[in-house]
Amino acid sequence: MFAPVYFDHNATTPVEPAVLEAMLPYFSVQFGNASSRHEYGRAARRAIDEARGKVAAAVGAQANEVIFTSCGSEANNLFLKGAAACLRPGALVVSALEHPCVLRPAEQLARRGWTLHRASVDAAGRVDATAFAELMRERPKLVSVMLANNETGVVQDVEALAAAARSAQAWFHTDAVQAVGKLPVDFRRLNAAGVHALTLSGHKLGGPKGAAALVLDKRVELESLIAGGGHERGLRSGTENVAAIVGLGVACTLAAERQAAYARHVANLRQRLESGLLALGATVFGLAAARLPNTVYFALPELDGETLVGQLDRAGYAAASGAACSSANPEPSHVLRAMGVSPELARAAVRASLGATSTAEQVDGFLSALHATLARLRRLTAMSG
Amino acid sequence: MFAPVYFDHNATTPVEPAVLEAMLPYFSVQFGNASSRHEYGRAARRAIDEARGKVAAAVGAQANEVIFTSCGSEANNLFLKGAAACLRPGALVVSALEHPCVLRPAEQLARRGWTLHRASVDAAGRVDATAFAELMRERPKLVSVMLANNETGVVQDVEALAAAARSAQAWFHTDAVQAVGKLPVDFRRLNAAGVHALTLSGHKLGGPKGAAALVLDKRVELESLIAGGGHERGLRSGTENVAAIVGLGVACTLAAERQAAYARHVANLRQRLESGLLALGATVFGLAAARLPNTVYFALPELDGETLVGQLDRAGYAAASGAACSSANPEPSHVLRAMGVSPELARAAVRASLGATSTAEQVDGFLSALHATLARLRRLTAMSG
Repeated sequence: MFAPVYFDHNATTPVEPAVLEAMLPYFSVQFGNASSRHEYGRAARRAIDEARGKVAAAVGAQANEVIFTSCGSEANNLFLKGAAACLRPGALVVSALEHPCVLRPAEQLARRGWTLHRASVDAAGRVDATAFAELMRERPKLVSVMLANNETGVVQDVEALAAAARSAQAWFHTDAVQAVGKLPVDFRRLNAAGVHALTLSGHKLGGPKGAAALVLDKRVELESLIAGGGHERGLRSGTENVAAIVGLGVACTLAAERQAAYARHVANLRQRLESGLLALGATVFGLAAARLPNTVYFALPELDGETLVGQLDRAGYAAASGAACSSANPEPSHVLRAMGVSPELARAAVRASLGATSTAEQVDGFLSALHATLARLRRLTAMSG
Repeated sequence: MFAPVYFDHNATTPVEPAVLEAMLPYFSVQFGNASSRHEYGRAARRAIDEARGKVAAAVGAQANEVIFTSCGSEANNLFLKGAAACLRPGALVVSALEHPCVLRPAEQLARRGWTLHRASVDAAGRVDATAFAELMRERPKLVSVMLANNETGVVQDVEALAAAARSAQAWFHTDAVQAVGKLPVDFRRLNAAGVHALTLSGHKLGGPKGAAALVLDKRVELESLIAGGGHERGLRSGTENVAAIVGLGVACTLAAERQAAYARHVANLRQRLESGLLALGATVFGLAAARLPNTVYFALPELDGETLVGQLDRAGYAAASGAACSSANPEPSHVLRAMGVSPELARAAVRASLGATSTAEQVDGFLSALHATLARLRRLTAMSG
């Protein structure tokens, strides 16, 4: 079986064996609907309660602050549109770096009377603190700034930004889908600093696709996006995906336990990869900022990123050109544009995101493949020139 | 291991072994994000495309009419709120029998300027055709009538209702989560009669929780409920739950292949069960109407439904008191109230919903358990009286 080297862990991760094992009984044996009042139903309810406790413990939250959703995009939409529905339209601030599943709902709100402000970022991919403080004078009611960016891996100082947002009395949300498992994430501490909601997602941290969570300060009033039977304290109706929720719980526990060792492992490999890339003449985006330990977002100026990813794929290495969030987006990365990167250089961008199973040999192989591809493409360019 | 007899297939069904087998590779081996442009991503995309074709084929639709969602509740909310967002507020008609995941979003729309009308039903649980035709004079823009009711199993003449709605030029939606797999369902035929959208759900038909679909006539304009990366033709963003979607596809194929044999099997058992219940003095709701072949919704007048379900559970039989849609709903069934059933009799309601694996022995055992419970409770009542 063809199994390319996988350097795209920010797009999605394989389900951990222990996670899949924990999920399996919930498909065909303990298959009950958690709302049913018989043994099948109670077993499902117990499994969900246990998973809720695990997710909460992994991010320093209380179990009753965890709202399960089907994916990170849903959790982000639930926060923005759900909170907006309980407020009169006003100002809304999101960083220019947000994932489309924050930017698009923010734009939907802008069409419904909200005033949308995009917080600018510096050349290293950090939200500009001065400009952000300035924006707080608009008295936004809602703010969303991601904890770590999916493309660059740049980590935002969300605690400081939340503190700055306090004067505005905004509800402050952070999309932490790329951070949980890769960095220590403590909702209680974030909450003390003024963060009211946090999104995490199973498939980014060794759990299954199909389960994510909005961790929510209970003072925030939300209208449900999916209304119906009143599941998840009335905030998210729909029969719970028990197996996926169980998987999310186990994955969160494992990710929290392994985070420090994981970070050391991938940071070493990333160092090796970055040294090699810089030696090849690459630009590494966000190099000056604090970043996720597993992410390298780079460009080899004379090469198109899409082309390079295709060449690497044929050589047996799975990497990404920008984010894997949209099936057909020919535009250069909005993240890099926000950082002031030229469209030409942005089109050259390639992301390698490492995982716990990545090895030094794979990194060396990737660099060799890149070197060979570069040499070949330069020969072709020279011939056509 | 404790494995009670499961007579609650309308709440959820076990995942078919062939379905689970088809899903397994997509957790930890072919785990790619379908938006990724490398071999892992392409394999996930192919799997989703194949599943889309299977779902479409099972209900007589085209693949490009299938929008995957995380659950039936999401699909129903997507239709109602998504279509409403593209229209100026006007009249909206839903039947009084709808599931809360149609009723609650309809109520949300009513708070945003829409005029909500609930179509009344007769004593057998059928939407009243005359009253419905009358409501069409309100020129509704949106109509939603379920194909089969989750509690009574009563099947609505959706084709006739859709034809009546044509003069109003409403978008007509039908929640078919209880119908697909239990009855022949042909979206092309429904569409020709004036039905523009249909909801189906994996976990009601031998597939997994976590995957459902809105089958949608492409003339209907929808705003996404979950906005972001632009998945599902921009109508449902979020990383696709590949394993669950694969499972939904296989489950739909199996359900369509087996539907006729399934219906014969459960109809025979239902006949046996109903004869026994009537002999015990039970009222069977919807008896005069066309019903799903697997569903018996009955009441033994002197007994509380919750209590009886608890007794049956202890005797090893999993049945339901009304719908398993809400974790804490002490009100008697809104479906029975709409049918004109007294609150006292409605509180006695118990639903047994059979499945392909149900047997005559299980039915006989259920009747015996019911008989024993009845005798005991009547003795207690006599003693306390």
